[in-house]
Amino acid sequence: MCELLGMSANVPTDICFSFTGLMQRGGKTGPHSDGWGITFYEGRGFRTFKDPNPSCRSRIAELVQEYPIKSCAVVSHIRQANRGGVSLENTHPFTRELWGRYWTFAHNGQLTDYEALDTGRFKPVGDTDSEMAFCWLLNQLEAKFPVLPDDLAPVYDYVASCCDKLRQLGVYNMLLSNGEYVLTYCTNNLHWITRRAPFGQASLIDEDVTIDFQKETTPNDVVTVIATQPLTNDENWHKMQQGEFGVFHFGELIHNRIL
Amino acid sequence: MCELLGMSANVPTDICFSFTGLMQRGGKTGPHSDGWGITFYEGRGFRTFKDPNPSCRSRIAELVQEYPIKSCAVVSHIRQANRGGVSLENTHPFTRELWGRYWTFAHNGQLTDYEALDTGRFKPVGDTDSEMAFCWLLNQLEAKFPVLPDDLAPVYDYVASCCDKLRQLGVYNMLLSNGEYVLTYCTNNLHWITRRAPFGQASLIDEDVTIDFQKETTPNDVVTVIATQPLTNDENWHKMQQGEFGVFHFGELIHNRIL
Repeated sequence: MCELLGMSANVPTDICFSFTGLMQRGGKTGPHSDGWGITFYEGRGFRTFKDPNPSCRSRIAELVQEYPIKSCAVVSHIRQANRGGVSLENTHPFTRELWGRYWTFAHNGQLTDYEALDTGRFKPVGDTDSEMAFCWLLNQLEAKFPVLPDDLAPVYDYVASCCDKLRQLGVYNMLLSNGEYVLTYCTNNLHWITRRAPFGQASLIDEDVTIDFQKETTPNDVVTVIATQPLTNDENWHKMQQGEFGVFHFGELIHNRIL
Repeated sequence: MCELLGMSANVPTDICFSFTGLMQRGGKTGPHSDGWGITFYEGRGFRTFKDPNPSCRSRIAELVQEYPIKSCAVVSHIRQANRGGVSLENTHPFTRELWGRYWTFAHNGQLTDYEALDTGRFKPVGDTDSEMAFCWLLNQLEAKFPVLPDDLAPVYDYVASCCDKLRQLGVYNMLLSNGEYVLTYCTNNLHWITRRAPFGQASLIDEDVTIDFQKETTPNDVVTVIATQPLTNDENWHKMQQGEFGVFHFGELIHNRIL
């Protein structure tokens, strides 16, 4: 299995604190030592840092922890390989273009009988169940919506119904973003928290680090963090239910579907 | 204009030396201060470091200079913006999937009347002439070869003829790679050098750094570096001609077409 970390914020915000917690699980406080990656959106563009080596001793992970890249949408993943070997092409997140936007995907779980999924023009490069599911999802979306409609509600609904199908193949916890929206799907492990004024303190579970968000934020900031398991031990994280689908937009949960 | 840097090698090789030279041109010894990027292939996978900030004072560029990522194919670019604003989505290199492989592209030059290029399903995300040209090229390739043939010779020829068309729109110096091959096209500024045993010393033009390649290599290493302008002042770089197209494979020039 793997761990996911996502962020949605209304102002460009760094994720150094949460990322520091997650990275410890990559071989130190957790067994997810088969690579890690993080994608930061800035406008329509993105940059991804990834490494097939364990995050807890990755020089690149150190840079990401120390160098505050500010973003409104982040998708991150640390991997414990099950389907597909340990290699860069199998390291999440995966990014592809659809409708003239970059879509970034990370998956926690394990699927069976995924080989028959029709990915159409979106051909997987690596050999994970996750990339296969992502390519299939994009192909489904493009077939259903050759042009992106102005009203995104039917698009959300369709993403949710595609995720429902993928869940029938196994465990499917997902983060998906185009830089503006962060979409989440839960089979069994996904939690989220929205931080807004009045901000308090929080302490990481995996590392002896405490942060005072009031010193790091302005009163109008709204920042949601999504993770497979809570990253702090003194805040109330929402646990998502089986089959729950969520859409976060600039920090706010704007759409939520519980089966 | 911009500067390009590429590498093709028969063993995973780091590019720290050449990259150090190039980065100085990003605001220090050269005017190319509108962002930079570098893509390293490892197997079928790749990782890209990029920054819309000047390379000569980029924390991420520092990491890339100090941390030897070993690769057989590298594409790098520093930008002086002409078409398209300074932003992450306009920062080269650009990477897209075709035929189940990631293709990475960087362009030096400036095109006119590029807006009418038909990019088909490969939709640009940013607003540069370069990304438009890349998307058009991929669309042409997919239309001509829906499945990648075993014999790549006709594919090379077609890439070359597409580049000839792009050159009619302006200055088009190009690097294109799928991690195994590095393809080059020259309108006016592209140089390359192949280093092999017996290895000697070389000194950067842009920074007071000298390297003894014999200490860094084994006798069987073959490493080609491609750059808009030579990076060292004590080696003989080949200058590519107008309309010249080259294919490098694991360090060797295996195909060359001069108009």
